[in-house]
Amino acid sequence: MEIINNPLPETWSALCQRPVAEQQGLNTLVRDILLSVKQEGDRALLRFTQQFDRIALKDLAVSPQEIAAAAGKVDNDLKQAIALARQNIQAFHASQAISSRPVITSPGVACWQQSVGIEKVGLYIPGGSAPLFSAILMLGVPAQLAGCQEIVLCSPADENGRLDPVVLYTAGLLGITSIFKVGGAQAIAAMAYGTATIPRVYKIFGPGNQFVTRAKELVQLDGLAIDMPAGPSEVLIIADDTGNPDFIAADLLAQAEHGPDSQVMLLSTSSRLLSATVAALNRQLPRLPRQEIAQKALANSRFILLASLDECLAFSNLYAPEHLIVATEKAASLARGITNAGSVFLGNFSCESAGDYASGTNHTLPTNGFARSYSGVSLDSFVRKITFQELSQEGLATIGPAIACMAEAEGLWAHKNAVNIRLKPDDNV
Amino acid sequence: MEIINNPLPETWSALCQRPVAEQQGLNTLVRDILLSVKQEGDRALLRFTQQFDRIALKDLAVSPQEIAAAAGKVDNDLKQAIALARQNIQAFHASQAISSRPVITSPGVACWQQSVGIEKVGLYIPGGSAPLFSAILMLGVPAQLAGCQEIVLCSPADENGRLDPVVLYTAGLLGITSIFKVGGAQAIAAMAYGTATIPRVYKIFGPGNQFVTRAKELVQLDGLAIDMPAGPSEVLIIADDTGNPDFIAADLLAQAEHGPDSQVMLLSTSSRLLSATVAALNRQLPRLPRQEIAQKALANSRFILLASLDECLAFSNLYAPEHLIVATEKAASLARGITNAGSVFLGNFSCESAGDYASGTNHTLPTNGFARSYSGVSLDSFVRKITFQELSQEGLATIGPAIACMAEAEGLWAHKNAVNIRLKPDDNV
Repeated sequence: MEIINNPLPETWSALCQRPVAEQQGLNTLVRDILLSVKQEGDRALLRFTQQFDRIALKDLAVSPQEIAAAAGKVDNDLKQAIALARQNIQAFHASQAISSRPVITSPGVACWQQSVGIEKVGLYIPGGSAPLFSAILMLGVPAQLAGCQEIVLCSPADENGRLDPVVLYTAGLLGITSIFKVGGAQAIAAMAYGTATIPRVYKIFGPGNQFVTRAKELVQLDGLAIDMPAGPSEVLIIADDTGNPDFIAADLLAQAEHGPDSQVMLLSTSSRLLSATVAALNRQLPRLPRQEIAQKALANSRFILLASLDECLAFSNLYAPEHLIVATEKAASLARGITNAGSVFLGNFSCESAGDYASGTNHTLPTNGFARSYSGVSLDSFVRKITFQELSQEGLATIGPAIACMAEAEGLWAHKNAVNIRLKPDDNV
Repeated sequence: MEIINNPLPETWSALCQRPVAEQQGLNTLVRDILLSVKQEGDRALLRFTQQFDRIALKDLAVSPQEIAAAAGKVDNDLKQAIALARQNIQAFHASQAISSRPVITSPGVACWQQSVGIEKVGLYIPGGSAPLFSAILMLGVPAQLAGCQEIVLCSPADENGRLDPVVLYTAGLLGITSIFKVGGAQAIAAMAYGTATIPRVYKIFGPGNQFVTRAKELVQLDGLAIDMPAGPSEVLIIADDTGNPDFIAADLLAQAEHGPDSQVMLLSTSSRLLSATVAALNRQLPRLPRQEIAQKALANSRFILLASLDECLAFSNLYAPEHLIVATEKAASLARGITNAGSVFLGNFSCESAGDYASGTNHTLPTNGFARSYSGVSLDSFVRKITFQELSQEGLATIGPAIACMAEAEGLWAHKNAVNIRLKPDDNV
């Protein structure tokens, strides 16, 4: 790991570059998959599952028996851990509910918002080497709190045509029963357009590979809402001499093990800490089962020495990290200056793993610089805030002349008339 | 206007269809414009302005002198109306600010959200026959409340190469000084990619024609955020015998005058009210300057007699109207059942014009059924809610074992290690 010493500000933008994934032909491939599912429905889903996942499925739907049987196959320790995580995620997301109390903007003019759950939502849970049941908690818990009436879950089956028991157990725990064995861009297409088996939804959530991600972006053009655009996961750590190199190395590796395209950045005012962290990395890395993946990710990564914590903060705000760990005793005062980040972890005991699983915050976060414009998933993501207003006759009398004046200036006479007919009915009808 | 009597529920979906705009070739045309601006910058902007708007501009930027001079050209009445509208929009949107109070999810585990304004936002204000300065209030006021640091405004110039004084006055009032004379898809491209003159932004807001709308959708694929997808404006009115046919006709016409592709729907339990509204429409229509436009929009529109207010509500929820006016004495109880709508107007004195201009609610709303998944613009639209967490050593001890257990079950050993190294340093390093 090379340490970059006090880079000039004009080089910062280049240092903030993310590794670029190969995308040649991706759009065409994904568009073809979307179109096939739109036209052929379930038949296309079964064909793509055979073609891409090498699984011959008879039935896409998970049966109630499969869901019920899953509970018996999950360890009690894990069940208790899931229960704690669920409870914390519930508590934090429930606190995000808004008040529907009317605001009296002018006498007789009451305006308010009412939060209503999106009726039909789709959750995509990736497959792969391990069951990502934590994503079900992160999406299913707020969906339920929001009052979403129909929650559809798609996840690719393993080579035996099954979903992992922990995935089914977690979904079952949240009362999610519309579960389908399909992955990739074809799963996104199924939820976007609907098939005979899989219901159409209005908004699609969840992480995925580049096919899934591109499919989510493309179905937006057909009017589907999605949680946010996505890219490889990443962490940026700001640390000074009060940070702990062993902890920091562990956090960097936790990020790096996600995938070879993950990026980890360490900014510090202390060359001692940077060197000590490199040493700790070298000690910890060989013990990891996923060391090969982590090593590739570390090749994309940067350790940077900067002159002050304020410079670290400025660099971090330019980078706009998905995860930002502030490993210094001055974390609280630095926190006030953070303008671009997905989720922030303050102090030496706030490891990113906590937010990934069980502290209560959501782990579905904007990567790839999208933190400049997007928030992570929250209760907001699952609701519409419908605005309401009620004007009394007095209220309309108060603001009516202003409305009429503005409408006339915009050339919209019928807008003006809608006011005047109520205030001076004799003049108008 | 034909009245549809008690249509069977299986026909409701067809009755909810919006008029479909011609889109042949739109994607290709807009993609070409986006690419040209990305590659050629200001030169492409000046060329497209010449080509599409028939204006030869020397300079895209509005000068501070032009902004300052605008105030002298706006009537005092209109200034006062704008001041009132601004104040109400400010009051309602300020009430949407969230609390940053920490939630203690487990002992020693504090989680909170902090709302931070998006640093750079772009507002698109359409041109055309009249200056849409109200859109500046609806976007500029929450952008300022949110703390957005850079607000860029693009709007097409008139045939003399100028922006309307009311547009400049309203922008100036809000302290918006980065104003550029460019419209259409090329304006969206300029804000998405940046040019020598026009700064790049992270999120683009505002209404527009089909070129603007499609451009906003397409720049999303390059990572830009937008307020929401858009379509023609629309209103649905639910009324019973306690509604006022003259008021309802005026509201329908106020919607219809927006454009020939606007849609107005009237649902009622009273055939008397439906007939009386048709008569009132016929009386009011000939007096409107924009009657030709309104007449075309009325051709897309439907008057429907239904058996009960509950049926009206069910139909409205299926339609998911941008604007929903509930013109009955039972408005308050019906309001509780509304699941899909952009903005709702309760009772006989809550005309849609109020929300369009001055009551305080936002008029940038989801059309075309997008109310199923999108909210209208609010303070939320201009911020990111960054999550923060701070765990004490005790906090990590409380939830650490659950994190470690879940991480192991997902095969993420480095995630587990990031917890264990903090809790049992001697075992791990």
